[in-house]
Amino acid sequence: MELFTVDDLPLIKEGDNIAAMICERTQPESHDVIVIASTIVAKSEAATILKDAIIPSERAVAMAKKCGTDPALVQVVLDNSVEQIVEFPVLLVENLNGHVSINAGIDDSNVDDRYFLHMPHDPDGSAKSIGLHIAELCGKDVSVIITDTNGRAFKIGQTGVAVGVYGVHPIKDWRGEKDLFGKVLEITEEAVADEIASAANLLMGEAAGSTPVVIVRGLNLYSSDDVSVKEMYRREGEDIIRKGLKCLRHS
Amino acid sequence: MELFTVDDLPLIKEGDNIAAMICERTQPESHDVIVIASTIVAKSEAATILKDAIIPSERAVAMAKKCGTDPALVQVVLDNSVEQIVEFPVLLVENLNGHVSINAGIDDSNVDDRYFLHMPHDPDGSAKSIGLHIAELCGKDVSVIITDTNGRAFKIGQTGVAVGVYGVHPIKDWRGEKDLFGKVLEITEEAVADEIASAANLLMGEAAGSTPVVIVRGLNLYSSDDVSVKEMYRREGEDIIRKGLKCLRHS
Repeated sequence: MELFTVDDLPLIKEGDNIAAMICERTQPESHDVIVIASTIVAKSEAATILKDAIIPSERAVAMAKKCGTDPALVQVVLDNSVEQIVEFPVLLVENLNGHVSINAGIDDSNVDDRYFLHMPHDPDGSAKSIGLHIAELCGKDVSVIITDTNGRAFKIGQTGVAVGVYGVHPIKDWRGEKDLFGKVLEITEEAVADEIASAANLLMGEAAGSTPVVIVRGLNLYSSDDVSVKEMYRREGEDIIRKGLKCLRHS
Repeated sequence: MELFTVDDLPLIKEGDNIAAMICERTQPESHDVIVIASTIVAKSEAATILKDAIIPSERAVAMAKKCGTDPALVQVVLDNSVEQIVEFPVLLVENLNGHVSINAGIDDSNVDDRYFLHMPHDPDGSAKSIGLHIAELCGKDVSVIITDTNGRAFKIGQTGVAVGVYGVHPIKDWRGEKDLFGKVLEITEEAVADEIASAANLLMGEAAGSTPVVIVRGLNLYSSDDVSVKEMYRREGEDIIRKGLKCLRHS
């Protein structure tokens, strides 16, 4: 398996055609996974909010005061989430697409000071659109994973995660296969989309020299099914950690 | 960045010299990361427990009954954990090294039916020992990451994670670096050891054809400092998810 960056991409702006920019700079092969940072997808889709236009609600002001953060940011997070799972000391929410993260992935880094950048409106749809466009331009069936970075339970530090997928199921199911001693594996479902996102994130970087597109070659995971990142979101009633956080909230 | 498996390793047994087996089959380069599944490290260290020799306590029997699992397994998990964070519907514990996982990583797969396999006693120490031995045999300074697979909060599926490290800090600190617009990054710490483990896990597999050693080449992360996987374990008082699970337990 080989991973390499797509270099010399310009700063992405509204209306930019990411698929074309990738095909101009590299030659994808069949079943490559094209990993793209959500930031540039959001920028190409103009998923920005002018800070000056935000009027924070009383609730946003109160929440921001408690966390020592910006009321305008809190308002945007509230507008982009279906549930606030933790409100203090961080704002952990489920966003409009079911993804749980701090601040709904609203970003203040790598974007012009006057704006917040929110997540792409339909990340699976964006991945599909870019994937189909690459197929059209290059004649190759590729997978596309749109990524962000997220924290984890019990541990410091963030890893790359998938927030939108095309051409690859986010979960690989090993159940029913046999181990070295012939015993049937019972519970192993592998989160391949997140593992690919983590691998690519090793080459992406966070700072000014960041490279927002990484190609993963040599994995044989391409699927022509309709796929969705939602395949890996745990249903609320089955989520012990979510239950715990709710308990804390009501205690 | 390139990842490849070390092929044709035999089934590992007590006393096997993993470093020598790797050097016989491949030629590591300086600053390669050698990723090794904890299972084979545990087997080489005879980290096994004979099932017939286990006498489950009353508490283990009661806990096993509640979860519909094996009292002997629960007893081994209790013996190998410092805290039981969740007892139902799964047994989520902090193991003797500070790592939080289901069943303390005690494994029933890929091991002879008569035994449970537990985690290596000192995974950082095992990583260091293998790394130093590879340096001695091949004349190259390599990093070593010992891995397991773990579930995640809010999502279905497991990913590769680091449980022992040598020659690479598990967290890369981006704080203080500047973004594309010159703003200083405030909170980004990247869990590189877990990202490397995830990347390698894409090639390892879970079933009979699994390959427990993967080499990652082309990352420039080698460190000669003393490193420990504990650098990434969150301190208990700072861990909101742990607080939530405790709340649930006492509710």
